[in-house]
Amino acid sequence: MEFFFNPQSIAVIGATPTRFKNGYSILRNLMSGYQGKVYPVNPRYEEALGFPCFPSVRAIPDKVDLAIIIVPAAMVPQAVEECAARGVPGVMIESGGFAEIGPKGKILQQQLVDIAKRTGIRIWGPNCMGLVDAKHGYVFSFMHSRKFREQLTAGRVSLVVQSGMLSAAFLVDLMSNGLMGISKVCSVGNKVDVNECDVLEYLLADPDTGVVGLYLESFVDGRRFMELCRRSAKPVVVLKGGKSRKGAEAAMSHTASLAGNQRIISGALAQAGVREAKDFRQMADICRSLAIVPPRPAGQTGRIAVLTFSGGAGILSADFIEEMGLSVADLAEETYDQLRKLFPEWRPVSNPVDLYPVIEDGTDVFGEAVKAALADPGVDAVFFHSNTGEAGHVQKMADLSKAAGKPLFIWTLGTKENTYEMYTIARACELLVYQDIYRACECMAAVFQQPKPTDILSERQERTTTVSLNSELQNIIDTAAGPLDEYVSKNILKACGVPTVEEQIVTSTAQAKETASCMGMPVVMKGLQPGGVHKTELGLVDLDIKTGRAAGKSYSALMKKMKGTGRVLMQKQVHGKVELIIGLVRDSQFGPCVMFGVGGIMAEVLDDVVFAVAPLTHRDALNLIARLRSRKLLNGFRGAPPVNRDEMAQILVAVGDLGAACPRIREIDVNPLIITDNGPVAVDTTIVLKEPENNAS
Amino acid sequence: MEFFFNPQSIAVIGATPTRFKNGYSILRNLMSGYQGKVYPVNPRYEEALGFPCFPSVRAIPDKVDLAIIIVPAAMVPQAVEECAARGVPGVMIESGGFAEIGPKGKILQQQLVDIAKRTGIRIWGPNCMGLVDAKHGYVFSFMHSRKFREQLTAGRVSLVVQSGMLSAAFLVDLMSNGLMGISKVCSVGNKVDVNECDVLEYLLADPDTGVVGLYLESFVDGRRFMELCRRSAKPVVVLKGGKSRKGAEAAMSHTASLAGNQRIISGALAQAGVREAKDFRQMADICRSLAIVPPRPAGQTGRIAVLTFSGGAGILSADFIEEMGLSVADLAEETYDQLRKLFPEWRPVSNPVDLYPVIEDGTDVFGEAVKAALADPGVDAVFFHSNTGEAGHVQKMADLSKAAGKPLFIWTLGTKENTYEMYTIARACELLVYQDIYRACECMAAVFQQPKPTDILSERQERTTTVSLNSELQNIIDTAAGPLDEYVSKNILKACGVPTVEEQIVTSTAQAKETASCMGMPVVMKGLQPGGVHKTELGLVDLDIKTGRAAGKSYSALMKKMKGTGRVLMQKQVHGKVELIIGLVRDSQFGPCVMFGVGGIMAEVLDDVVFAVAPLTHRDALNLIARLRSRKLLNGFRGAPPVNRDEMAQILVAVGDLGAACPRIREIDVNPLIITDNGPVAVDTTIVLKEPENNAS
Repeated sequence: MEFFFNPQSIAVIGATPTRFKNGYSILRNLMSGYQGKVYPVNPRYEEALGFPCFPSVRAIPDKVDLAIIIVPAAMVPQAVEECAARGVPGVMIESGGFAEIGPKGKILQQQLVDIAKRTGIRIWGPNCMGLVDAKHGYVFSFMHSRKFREQLTAGRVSLVVQSGMLSAAFLVDLMSNGLMGISKVCSVGNKVDVNECDVLEYLLADPDTGVVGLYLESFVDGRRFMELCRRSAKPVVVLKGGKSRKGAEAAMSHTASLAGNQRIISGALAQAGVREAKDFRQMADICRSLAIVPPRPAGQTGRIAVLTFSGGAGILSADFIEEMGLSVADLAEETYDQLRKLFPEWRPVSNPVDLYPVIEDGTDVFGEAVKAALADPGVDAVFFHSNTGEAGHVQKMADLSKAAGKPLFIWTLGTKENTYEMYTIARACELLVYQDIYRACECMAAVFQQPKPTDILSERQERTTTVSLNSELQNIIDTAAGPLDEYVSKNILKACGVPTVEEQIVTSTAQAKETASCMGMPVVMKGLQPGGVHKTELGLVDLDIKTGRAAGKSYSALMKKMKGTGRVLMQKQVHGKVELIIGLVRDSQFGPCVMFGVGGIMAEVLDDVVFAVAPLTHRDALNLIARLRSRKLLNGFRGAPPVNRDEMAQILVAVGDLGAACPRIREIDVNPLIITDNGPVAVDTTIVLKEPENNAS
Repeated sequence: MEFFFNPQSIAVIGATPTRFKNGYSILRNLMSGYQGKVYPVNPRYEEALGFPCFPSVRAIPDKVDLAIIIVPAAMVPQAVEECAARGVPGVMIESGGFAEIGPKGKILQQQLVDIAKRTGIRIWGPNCMGLVDAKHGYVFSFMHSRKFREQLTAGRVSLVVQSGMLSAAFLVDLMSNGLMGISKVCSVGNKVDVNECDVLEYLLADPDTGVVGLYLESFVDGRRFMELCRRSAKPVVVLKGGKSRKGAEAAMSHTASLAGNQRIISGALAQAGVREAKDFRQMADICRSLAIVPPRPAGQTGRIAVLTFSGGAGILSADFIEEMGLSVADLAEETYDQLRKLFPEWRPVSNPVDLYPVIEDGTDVFGEAVKAALADPGVDAVFFHSNTGEAGHVQKMADLSKAAGKPLFIWTLGTKENTYEMYTIARACELLVYQDIYRACECMAAVFQQPKPTDILSERQERTTTVSLNSELQNIIDTAAGPLDEYVSKNILKACGVPTVEEQIVTSTAQAKETASCMGMPVVMKGLQPGGVHKTELGLVDLDIKTGRAAGKSYSALMKKMKGTGRVLMQKQVHGKVELIIGLVRDSQFGPCVMFGVGGIMAEVLDDVVFAVAPLTHRDALNLIARLRSRKLLNGFRGAPPVNRDEMAQILVAVGDLGAACPRIREIDVNPLIITDNGPVAVDTTIVLKEPENNAS
């Protein structure tokens, strides 16, 4: 990927001396920051912006590291062919008119895929804005704004954006308001070859990048994306577009992206330690916060001291801090002693500290208060409301924060001139400033609640996922197709270590009576038919059987209903107030995924379902449980013992392992898993196998 | 209140010629915009800023409409006394040092209360920043910022802010960024006399005010606040500070405010058609949106056409629009025909409409597209993403929007210079512009989801809340004290029309047997003791009694346990999957309130409880049900019939009426109300009466 990010020479295919054309802007942008060789390519011109123009890339006498292509879509495949023939390792196609415009463009895009496969040339784009590198001053893009080039501010946040115009215009906006610096911005467009994973991998290894923020409309390879994030200590923030039905439709017509199952995506991102953003500017604010504040030491949970010039702002800060799951710090007595020195004797002092009444005393109350708060061992960070952006003052705050090794978050208000000054000064001395109290608190939460790298590293080793089933069960999985019956399905689960309900196939009225009395009443009897998953609807479930006689009668009735096509299963009727669902599904972007949710009557109200990508580590499973909104259900009710979370996690891991180890399993549905007084028990289960592959076709 | 908002003459008590002192700033601010007479009062000076200075307010020869007081707290009561003696109708006390600083200040504050009561003088403050009126250029405040005075921009939003510094600094910020104009900003401080209701009442009648936004730390008179909001067609937006525990503590030390029960406050605000804001700037954005867009006609539900220059921004817009409960409009075929004219033939067009590929054609694609979208009868508003703030262009958009009678919401990105220009131009021609897509969508939701004035008007008439109980029950309510037993409590409910479980007091073993068989088994038997509300804990509840013999035994056992102090109640055992809770509580700020929530096992997980202020109208009750997050529970499960919402509403109205009509009822607790196949039934109920008032004390 180095030839994309640090090419020694660049050909611009479609360069033109005509102003305001994209082929002009690319050249113009290269002239202002890029130090390598530039070769315009356009058969219609001899010269462009002072460079000699080449009729084709073949005519360039020297080595070309990167070709930026901006010719009409129909001409792109040939241009790429020529580059491949010329030995150019990578092309960045900024032209649009491919899969995003429908069938005609799809054909062209497929040609690009074929060329990349055949020749090994790497293709970035098409339908993108290319790359901006603020540190080196590279603008490999046709965005035409002189102001933009002039305002490029280097920082440690890199962005990957699956939307060209958004990346460009947004960058202009970000730079202009003075709050943020940027390392690299990569606009990846239709991702025909180079995708978000390739770029992310590069950026995670890039010493100039501290945090990566991505706006994505799809995941090309969800599992690789997750692995990259899990293996890196650098924070990754994702804004996913196309979460709604209409948004997903728009994503298809924008970058031809399949938006995917949002719950699975959210689950996978949480599992990989990736923070999801809500909006573009919020993503930028979270990224710049994580880029400045290093991971917090263990034990620093986000106990915040609030120093304000406005009582109302202090109150709102306290509200938002608690809403985010952070806490308003209980200050130490020594800290209060220090703070009280700033106030008249009779004035009560508490956190939030309202400094307004003492501001006009002429002493540096802010400096003293910040110092006292940072020194408090029970304070993890200071949220400082400042109404002055005076440079010396801001630098002093930065020094205090660095000396204490604790972050200082600043909220400021004022005229746009004053706040701009404050923003730029603060950015220069690596202090975080926010326009809104709420946003500031969201970013504090991002800082204090980010998954610690050590957590991720300890889970790093790949787990081998094999399940050892006896030959009979293994044979079923290898050869059967479609839904397995409940009894077989549960036998497989049981073999994987999942607790299942006590049950037995009965083959006669007499056996039914006998088994019922051995098992202990009441029992449930079910008629199992091949392929039949709707037992209740077919009247094949008898509940609450309390006598041997009733069991015998049920046996006869069920056999009669099934007309000799099935068998009868008897199981112990179990009780529990809480019903859960566990499932396994296969996602096109993330592969086998474990689903965990609330069942029974509550399911209809709560719609509380979470996902994780299989195989799960034990910790993944515990985190999955913790992500269930109704996890309180597992805490035990009215005297019932709480569910053992480790036991629950083992069940989730087992279901995931089964799915990951057996590609023939298309789906698993454990519903319900009842929480009994003796722990969770799988009561009904269906495993669905793939249809046999037709090798002849 | 007119003397506060439009005084003909103002005395400034504590005026001083010393720069940067508050008494100087007030005078300075009055000089720059206020046209009436100004009388500085300070015995230490002969003159201040060119005005003759008076030794006391008594020495002023002319009529004084308003005195602004800025002397130290200890001197304030005397100054107010003098004003009262001089016949000044109102004082605005901007000095701090009252209840917010503890016991010493509380004494001073009480003196102010006493003076107001005794003399009838109206007191605004203390501990406040006074009043700003941008239209008239009045700054009755000590905020000292020349820039601020110069940038004051008139608009139709008035703000009431219970935080001085926040109102001042925030105003500077709002004005400076060009997005917003202001009518009046009222900083009300400790609200010793003039409170948020007085100011709100004035503003709702003020022709210069279109929308009122309030930042409040407490409600002095919740019921009056609600009534004012319900009777007005003007939108009211509230940001409540002190929602968290720490925030509430801070509110106490800031403006000595009791933050109150947040759920009751939220319920009351929803009931009064008031929108709650999340943060300060969000409140401002919602207010300016509601000030520009008049109430939407019936049927306009928020079907949005999105016109964008960025596919990614279009996708995010669609996501947020759906998240907010609005919808991405399905465009009419004619609209598509119009839009297709802008695009090359092969280019698919859908909503969101991505205009980026055709922007550079030189034609006015934005104008044409906006026109087409506004003309579509299935479009209620256009969300227009603009990357240019050119004045003619913006004016054209405003004209199109006005001609169509549909709002146009603009999101823009760019350099700070360009966006500022866009903001100011758009504001001048009454177009709404936003910095963030998410915020823009929040404001669209505020516009389309605001309660229609007609809804409120039709509910306007005060309901008389009387309940007619027989003399026996009425006598109990009038004379008893503490918790009534279950049987009596349910008899009262039943008399109010609430369906209760079939039950009867039994007085002998024989009667127990007989009643059980008449009622139909199974039955439940309970021992009722005077004042005993914890029946289950005391072993006084027998469930699932299935035979007459068991009923008889239960009777004896219960009587024995109660040792002759109680009586035995038998009731039919009812079943239902859904258990609800209805309650009545008395809130110090809002009076009697009806509580409605989910009971049983789900309560522990869902914590789903909503409140409304009693008495409820039928519509209030329906809205209350609709605010329950788990309202789906009422839709019927697995074949069970859905709950009749009108019937449910009648029950809620009845409980509220009972509480409102009987001030001796301190609390009602209907728990559980079981949803049976035949509708809701109150199964257990406790009515708690007040302790008798001791008239001797």
